Amino acid sequence: MSMFGDDAYKNDTAVVLSSGGQDSTTCLYWAKEKFRKVIALGFDYGQKHALEIKAQLAIALCANVPYQRLPIKALEYIGNSVLTGEEKASCRTHPMNSMLPDTFVPFRNMIFLTIAAAYALSKGSRHLVTGVCETDYSGYPDCRQEFIHSLETTLHTALGGGMNPFVTIHTPLMHMTKADTVRLAVSLPGCMEALKYSHTCYNNKSLPCRECDACKLRQKGFEEAGITDPLYWREQHG
Amino acid sequence: MSMFGDDAYKNDTAVVLSSGGQDSTTCLYWAKEKFRKVIALGFDYGQKHALEIKAQLAIALCANVPYQRLPIKALEYIGNSVLTGEEKASCRTHPMNSMLPDTFVPFRNMIFLTIAAAYALSKGSRHLVTGVCETDYSGYPDCRQEFIHSLETTLHTALGGGMNPFVTIHTPLMHMTKADTVRLAVSLPGCMEALKYSHTCYNNKSLPCRECDACKLRQKGFEEAGITDPLYWREQHG
Repeated sequence: MSMFGDDAYKNDTAVVLSSGGQDSTTCLYWAKEKFRKVIALGFDYGQKHALEIKAQLAIALCANVPYQRLPIKALEYIGNSVLTGEEKASCRTHPMNSMLPDTFVPFRNMIFLTIAAAYALSKGSRHLVTGVCETDYSGYPDCRQEFIHSLETTLHTALGGGMNPFVTIHTPLMHMTKADTVRLAVSLPGCMEALKYSHTCYNNKSLPCRECDACKLRQKGFEEAGITDPLYWREQHG
Repeated sequence: MSMFGDDAYKNDTAVVLSSGGQDSTTCLYWAKEKFRKVIALGFDYGQKHALEIKAQLAIALCANVPYQRLPIKALEYIGNSVLTGEEKASCRTHPMNSMLPDTFVPFRNMIFLTIAAAYALSKGSRHLVTGVCETDYSGYPDCRQEFIHSLETTLHTALGGGMNPFVTIHTPLMHMTKADTVRLAVSLPGCMEALKYSHTCYNNKSLPCRECDACKLRQKGFEEAGITDPLYWREQHG
């Protein structure tokens, strides 16, 4: 029995979706405790925050796991969000639907997870790990448990259902608060060190901008947990 | 009332997934009768049959519809099938699962349809049209109605469900035999002309190789319908 409850996956490989951010970094270290082998997978989709990609690589190096970056240029042709455009992230709503934040890219998570599932199978793995979370719900419907379950069902159906491979999508942070996630990171060997190299800001700042939704959520979590965000280590060390 | 039953979509735009083959070409002309505007969408995923891409462009020109090609280089990194590799297509089974043909790329249709859905929304469209068919079932589980329904549900969940946009995936050929599809093509103005430029062969032959599954299925349909495949027009015209 490991500290995470069981050894069910100790012979398996997991593919962890890496954004270079706090949540996916915590998931990467969570997976390292649970699976025999872990592969970090990043996506290059023309995002303006290129710091994100540098962070993915730095964190995989810290974690000593293989890192694969997959290019999805198709997303550059689909201009639904400020994340791939020139506008600055804010609290405005999405042009498609006023109930959604303007940082929402329709089906982006679903595209990432489906390509990750194809990649995982090609590596003999049936386990994906992603840092989506519905507790501090920021309005992204494709971060909710209901979506993840529906996607697992469709992935299984795409392979024929029944006895065919079933791809499990692990979401260790789904029901955690941001403060819980910080406490989990503290408990995982090496994770706080790796978080020094993580990148969160939608406005592409190395230190938190304190303005975008992502920076505000991250700050709230560290404050509630009473822990200093390792990002501020950069203030001294550049 | 049009010849296809109703005018429900006469003000809408449809995105038709184009492979450059017989089925997607027939779907493109089906959509032209049903929707106000049609966009042909092709994918560039490092497939060895580059003739397919030429065919997509030629058919969109024939049909006088806009054509968009989206690159998904990520699929080049996922080597599960002979379709993106060097091996010749045959009747062998898939290395992942002996119940699947070796031309099956796990989640490929799902990746295409999900990216197409994101593209459609960015164009103000909520309609996809694809030529998948479960009648002449060649062992691809992601061509069946059950998969399409599951995918529609997951797409809807990814947008939040409820009153949020619902993307409909139209599959006009789902329950047709190949002979039915040939008869449908004959009934659609301009479709037989466009089929001269279509491409079907997995072995990248301009004229049917008569060996691969795709060529055999196509030949069977034209024979049963008692129609000469427009592809053979090329024998005289190069």
